[in-house]
Amino acid sequence: MNKKYVIGLDFGTDSVRAILVNVETGEEEASSVAYYKRWSEGKYCDPGRNQFRQHPLDYLEGMEEAIKGALKGHSEDIAEQVVGIGVDTTGSTPCAVDREGIPLALLDEFKDNPNAMFILWKDHTAVKEAEEINKLAKSWGGEDFTKYEGGVYSSEWFWAKILHVLREDEKVREAAFSWVEHCDWIPAVLSGETDPLTIRRSRCAAGHKAMWHEKWGGLPDEEFLVKLDPLLKGVKKNLYTETYTSDEKAGELSEEWAERLGLKPGIAIAVGAFDAHMGAVGGGIVEKALVKIMGTSTCDIIVAPDEVIGDKLIGGICGQVDGSVIPGTIGLEAGQSAYGDVYAWFKDLLSWPLDSILPEIEGIDPSVAKKIKDKILIKLTEEASKLKIEETGLLALDWLNGRRTPYADQTLKGAIIGLTLGSTAPKIFRALVEATAFGAKAINEQFIKEGVEIDQVIALGGISQKNDFVMQITADILNKPIKVATSEQTCALGAAMFGAVAAGIYDTVKKAQEKMGSGFNKTYYPDKENAEKYQKLYEKYLLLGETLEDQLRNL
Amino acid sequence: MNKKYVIGLDFGTDSVRAILVNVETGEEEASSVAYYKRWSEGKYCDPGRNQFRQHPLDYLEGMEEAIKGALKGHSEDIAEQVVGIGVDTTGSTPCAVDREGIPLALLDEFKDNPNAMFILWKDHTAVKEAEEINKLAKSWGGEDFTKYEGGVYSSEWFWAKILHVLREDEKVREAAFSWVEHCDWIPAVLSGETDPLTIRRSRCAAGHKAMWHEKWGGLPDEEFLVKLDPLLKGVKKNLYTETYTSDEKAGELSEEWAERLGLKPGIAIAVGAFDAHMGAVGGGIVEKALVKIMGTSTCDIIVAPDEVIGDKLIGGICGQVDGSVIPGTIGLEAGQSAYGDVYAWFKDLLSWPLDSILPEIEGIDPSVAKKIKDKILIKLTEEASKLKIEETGLLALDWLNGRRTPYADQTLKGAIIGLTLGSTAPKIFRALVEATAFGAKAINEQFIKEGVEIDQVIALGGISQKNDFVMQITADILNKPIKVATSEQTCALGAAMFGAVAAGIYDTVKKAQEKMGSGFNKTYYPDKENAEKYQKLYEKYLLLGETLEDQLRNL
Repeated sequence: MNKKYVIGLDFGTDSVRAILVNVETGEEEASSVAYYKRWSEGKYCDPGRNQFRQHPLDYLEGMEEAIKGALKGHSEDIAEQVVGIGVDTTGSTPCAVDREGIPLALLDEFKDNPNAMFILWKDHTAVKEAEEINKLAKSWGGEDFTKYEGGVYSSEWFWAKILHVLREDEKVREAAFSWVEHCDWIPAVLSGETDPLTIRRSRCAAGHKAMWHEKWGGLPDEEFLVKLDPLLKGVKKNLYTETYTSDEKAGELSEEWAERLGLKPGIAIAVGAFDAHMGAVGGGIVEKALVKIMGTSTCDIIVAPDEVIGDKLIGGICGQVDGSVIPGTIGLEAGQSAYGDVYAWFKDLLSWPLDSILPEIEGIDPSVAKKIKDKILIKLTEEASKLKIEETGLLALDWLNGRRTPYADQTLKGAIIGLTLGSTAPKIFRALVEATAFGAKAINEQFIKEGVEIDQVIALGGISQKNDFVMQITADILNKPIKVATSEQTCALGAAMFGAVAAGIYDTVKKAQEKMGSGFNKTYYPDKENAEKYQKLYEKYLLLGETLEDQLRNL
Repeated sequence: MNKKYVIGLDFGTDSVRAILVNVETGEEEASSVAYYKRWSEGKYCDPGRNQFRQHPLDYLEGMEEAIKGALKGHSEDIAEQVVGIGVDTTGSTPCAVDREGIPLALLDEFKDNPNAMFILWKDHTAVKEAEEINKLAKSWGGEDFTKYEGGVYSSEWFWAKILHVLREDEKVREAAFSWVEHCDWIPAVLSGETDPLTIRRSRCAAGHKAMWHEKWGGLPDEEFLVKLDPLLKGVKKNLYTETYTSDEKAGELSEEWAERLGLKPGIAIAVGAFDAHMGAVGGGIVEKALVKIMGTSTCDIIVAPDEVIGDKLIGGICGQVDGSVIPGTIGLEAGQSAYGDVYAWFKDLLSWPLDSILPEIEGIDPSVAKKIKDKILIKLTEEASKLKIEETGLLALDWLNGRRTPYADQTLKGAIIGLTLGSTAPKIFRALVEATAFGAKAINEQFIKEGVEIDQVIALGGISQKNDFVMQITADILNKPIKVATSEQTCALGAAMFGAVAAGIYDTVKKAQEKMGSGFNKTYYPDKENAEKYQKLYEKYLLLGETLEDQLRNL
């Protein structure tokens, strides 16, 4: 038997995971996670300013540890049988690099400078720059380069972030030859070819976050960029014009990295893409399916044939990009800035006496606080699930981390209305869960309004695996069945599928999905009666949001 | 030395207090509290339905215990030197009585029937009846009998409550000859003259809560009442036409009660009134002073000369009644349905894990929960006071128990907007404190808008004595100095002052105030800079309220 394997490499927010997958069956032979060391110590971040940076060494060391961890304990043969590597990362997570494509933070001079590191997706330091981009795009008289990205540029994205660093840090500005996305850089490193002028850039990252589009021949016009800020003069020429989908090879594994990882040199390295997009593939995305990756926030992915989208501009979402998910179809991205994070916030709120007062009480073991806190969400779920719809008397807006879609606006905030002296913690929790699901419904409705059909919902990610209560309410509110993907590592599995295609095992992503997909292990069906009640409450949610938008912005 | 004393009897929500006061100096010689026994066991109440009833025996037993407690330890002489008793109670707290003026619950047949007991001020079972009264008053074509009570009748008031009981309980309906307010009944009992047709009814209760006004010769027209519900036919004729201010005697202490209490028979018993109104007198009310009784809720009292008010109808408040506070002037009442209760709600919310989870953790002494809970408001105050104005990013509506004034609407609810993942417990607490103070400001503004001048604010009650943080924010938001009365028992002290006037010691309430008043022990001055910032936030509060009113009603 000569089995073949691919490695799926999934760079998340806190850690990198490597899975070793049988290319014939999709079976996960091994899996290993490595946490980012500097990140876990809180280095280079300033949460008060929403500054979140990651050191490139965290990625390199983590990648080596994770891949070696996955191979460990297997015979040497298995390393020989690995034929390709696929890579997904968070994004937009860009970094300044020098002429050789080396992230500046790897140079001694910049090793502790957060501006010389990767600017993590959730870094919100560039709010002002995003506003300027939006304003200029609508007013400069030329093409609106945001139009294939939902018409609203976010502070979480490429150009806002690099402009912010160029303005803030003269040394980085002078040393930066070019910029790479995290998902561009890892395949380049593995291939040993990091020249920023020739590395194969991700279509997914470029199209969704960098205003790249074939219609205007690539990145936005130099004139537009210079109008935005003269500091951007010349930046574009050291970036890229061509982009690549992840069924293509970024390169082949270099001798150096082959040795370092214990793999064969020359195996295929697929072009990188974002985690949600590869996760959607790993989770079984097909046409007319909305794939929701449900965790602290959500990412919602749809693919549609070119014929369906045509010249249509889908407003209010995070982009429509040819081949960003499945080559040959348009990948559409949306999402909510907070989902599980809303529940975590409420848990933290209720934990306040445990964090602030319990340690001051004499004779209490501080571990008690942790024991109680660990049970808060479980108990809240238990109690909230006993309540009937509308029994809370509450209505909430889920924008506690701003609104990603529909129509990105990071200046929006959350709200809870209908509070009485009888509003208990489980009631408020239920209202918050409903609010996040209403936010999900608003995205579905936006797609439908724009002519993109949805006939099924597929859920991936932590919440879909763990929280029946949230999933059932989401199904009731969406009024659609939600299928939950069996694999708990759909991002890494999707990356592995791309690795298999890039290695030539399959000629299309669809075939890789058919052979390697994990299927679904559960379906949540909407309850008809609940769905009707929720439809009415959803209309109140929409009205509340419309009514409060301006006031929330002006707080 | 032949000292003279009066007893101030203050019937609160949970207990009755008796204080023994020197009529010359106002010094409090003794004080004693008795808790209502049945009430403290939760009997006859159903908080889920907002049903709150009190058994008349709780009042009688409590009164005896409190007065005896205050006299205990003094020589017999002191009991001989008591020349009068003044009485205040909560209200509107009516009860059905038989032909002899005996509350039905004192009859064996009704001893456990909540409908035969006093319907406590905060009982909200009559929401529907209040709505019907409001509708009819505006539509029946005759006089709007609510017009001297702010134009909106509340479910907390006399007619709504008695109509509710008449509808709900056939037995009580058949046995009820008449109805008394708590503050009518106690002086009648002490005087030994409880005939409902002749007892001296409180002007304060009648004018503020029973739509009594001289203009229409007393209570509302029989025609109006029967239109409201034929069950009300004949009820009016067994009530009253005349009402009395509390400088007058309700009667003289009966032999029976003199013996029971150890006092001299024949001493003056003043006509009763509500706690807030007598509290305002005890706290030093004068013209152009707004007196705020600040506790779980607030009651706001102003007195104005007849010339100032004239024919003017002050909209949106709880009534304008000639002599309800100080005889010869118009007493104006307003208030907030929740003040301290808002903070207590938030404390309870944060206590949820301590109440629901801590008891399930093995090896933890359950007293730990109480220790932590006792510190929550202290610690919240400590942390919230470190925050700058607008640092919370939050705005709240204080209507968690409905809105009493301006413009009573018990269907309104609370709200918190501006929530982010960084909204901590102290930030939310501060926003809630600010919201209650904004509610207070809305009342001040309402008076001023209606032409009633306010040149000083006097605060009484638990919050004014205990919470610097709340008081300073209230002063900043009202943008007025707030003087805090020295006496912690201003209601009982006010009752004692009326006892002294009824006994003929002083010929006016003003003179009793001058001699017996406790003065002020503290003044909170507004910070100019804060006041300016809060003015802007107050405008946002008003806008938020206007914007959300309809949505809150329709939740």
